[in-house]
Amino acid sequence: MSEALNPSWIAVDWGTTHMRAYAMDVSGAVMGRAGGPGMSALAAGQMGSDFEASLLEAVAVWLDTARASDPMVVVMCGMVGSRQGWHEAGYLPVPQTLSGLGEALAQVPVRDARLAAFIVPGISQIDPYDVMRGEETQLAGYAAQMGSAGSTPGGRVCLPGTHAKWARVQAGAITHFSTAMTGELFDLLTEHSILAHSVADEVMDAEAFSDSVRAAFHDPACLTEALFSVRAEGLLTGQDGARARGRISGLLIGAELAGAKLTTGEEITLIGTPELCRAYSDALAAVGFSAQALDGEAMVLRGLSEVYAQLVRRNMVVA
Amino acid sequence: MSEALNPSWIAVDWGTTHMRAYAMDVSGAVMGRAGGPGMSALAAGQMGSDFEASLLEAVAVWLDTARASDPMVVVMCGMVGSRQGWHEAGYLPVPQTLSGLGEALAQVPVRDARLAAFIVPGISQIDPYDVMRGEETQLAGYAAQMGSAGSTPGGRVCLPGTHAKWARVQAGAITHFSTAMTGELFDLLTEHSILAHSVADEVMDAEAFSDSVRAAFHDPACLTEALFSVRAEGLLTGQDGARARGRISGLLIGAELAGAKLTTGEEITLIGTPELCRAYSDALAAVGFSAQALDGEAMVLRGLSEVYAQLVRRNMVVA
Repeated sequence: MSEALNPSWIAVDWGTTHMRAYAMDVSGAVMGRAGGPGMSALAAGQMGSDFEASLLEAVAVWLDTARASDPMVVVMCGMVGSRQGWHEAGYLPVPQTLSGLGEALAQVPVRDARLAAFIVPGISQIDPYDVMRGEETQLAGYAAQMGSAGSTPGGRVCLPGTHAKWARVQAGAITHFSTAMTGELFDLLTEHSILAHSVADEVMDAEAFSDSVRAAFHDPACLTEALFSVRAEGLLTGQDGARARGRISGLLIGAELAGAKLTTGEEITLIGTPELCRAYSDALAAVGFSAQALDGEAMVLRGLSEVYAQLVRRNMVVA
Repeated sequence: MSEALNPSWIAVDWGTTHMRAYAMDVSGAVMGRAGGPGMSALAAGQMGSDFEASLLEAVAVWLDTARASDPMVVVMCGMVGSRQGWHEAGYLPVPQTLSGLGEALAQVPVRDARLAAFIVPGISQIDPYDVMRGEETQLAGYAAQMGSAGSTPGGRVCLPGTHAKWARVQAGAITHFSTAMTGELFDLLTEHSILAHSVADEVMDAEAFSDSVRAAFHDPACLTEALFSVRAEGLLTGQDGARARGRISGLLIGAELAGAKLTTGEEITLIGTPELCRAYSDALAAVGFSAQALDGEAMVLRGLSEVYAQLVRRNMVVA
């Protein structure tokens, strides 16, 4: 249970596996944190599929001053807005101005009148088909941060993860994006494939990683053959689980970088956890690219703060 | 239980998921068939990990005339010869003459003196690391069939499956090979990934298949992005499970064909089940290559027959 606070509003990043709630003060600083189950546990019917009860359980102590006449604003992003989530928030098509998300929020019907809950929509693309949900808020945070530093947000942004997103940002708008299944494939291969016998639990050989990034980046067609070769090397030379883990990760990320069709000298912005950003920075460095890393949680909060500010400006809520 | 027969010898194709035994007459024709559990069930300890008991249960009725002084010859290939199998049969390195497998058989220690059991070794490669076990026998069958038709076996041979093998054969020897994890990735993606929600059970859209083969063949770096796009298309346009299944299969096979680095005009020989050979023939045709298909079971039996003939010639057994 989180401590009693009187936040100005509540920011919520509600993904597939976790819900993270933040008590925000009037300046946009984090006063407190709480967490709960992700969408998949709730959508699967645990806790009666009751997203509202799950949220209230996490943030009840932050609602001391909230009442029906002055409800607590909750701004959420992520899979909570999917069809299997709490309330469907739809998709905005590309090109999409990242500062405009606050104008397309879905208001969530609630039973507890102390809440005024909103969900940020996802972004969709038709050619080729693609969708994002959650990353658009991180991209809005990135655009806001660039803008307040006096730059026009632009360039290639990579958000590594289970489904890694690569977005082209031009003049503050997302114009095109793609999704590589790198993280999900890594999990499937290391946990459920024949390669599961070959990999170490946690340790990863850095040289095997870099070598494999280069191999797959320069010849992505070799990907699945090179993956099987990891197994064969284990059989023929004895296991080195850290080397196997480094190779599988490096091959998948190297193929992802090849798919991103980077231009020589292009600067890449990474948004994610420090660990993932470090792995992707190392991978990019192995093939001659440099990257700046931004913390994923900070970008979510910045993006949700932008959306909240838009709600206030539009007089939809009282700050 | 199989019917009582007096075969000349017994051929066994013992893979990961199935054991297939054949009662062979003196001319090399199949007199009868029997089956049993594959290596993985036995290696996992079911039936007491007793490969010999499992074989005897399947072929007992074929052993009426076998005795310790004149045992029944059983020639086996496949994962039964792996470290987790009945008896390890080792690997022969490339380049390896396909007519020479019979000289490197592992004789299996047996409790039942009515049996004289042998396992064909696998083939290994160091640069890059790769292994095959089972396919070498099909390749030996292919080489024997080519030889008896007056041709020198040569060219590219593809053996599609869970782990698809691509072998270069020159003057009757396997000189190089690679393994694409196409079948295993297809199963992982359609059963355990986010794409599992999108695919139909059995039906496959032929046009989506061919289009996707071409897309991945010409740009294999797009593979994992194109896979996620299947999911996104389902979300945005409504499901068409047959189209999704065709796209996933086509993308994986197209990327495999790109990895095979085919030369324009190259003739490919396919060895496998009729269904897999048809899918690969269609895929090759979609990118401008033609293929001849050989039945996988026929090639195993032809290869095992060659090995048996070598045993007889070497007087290791009496025909």
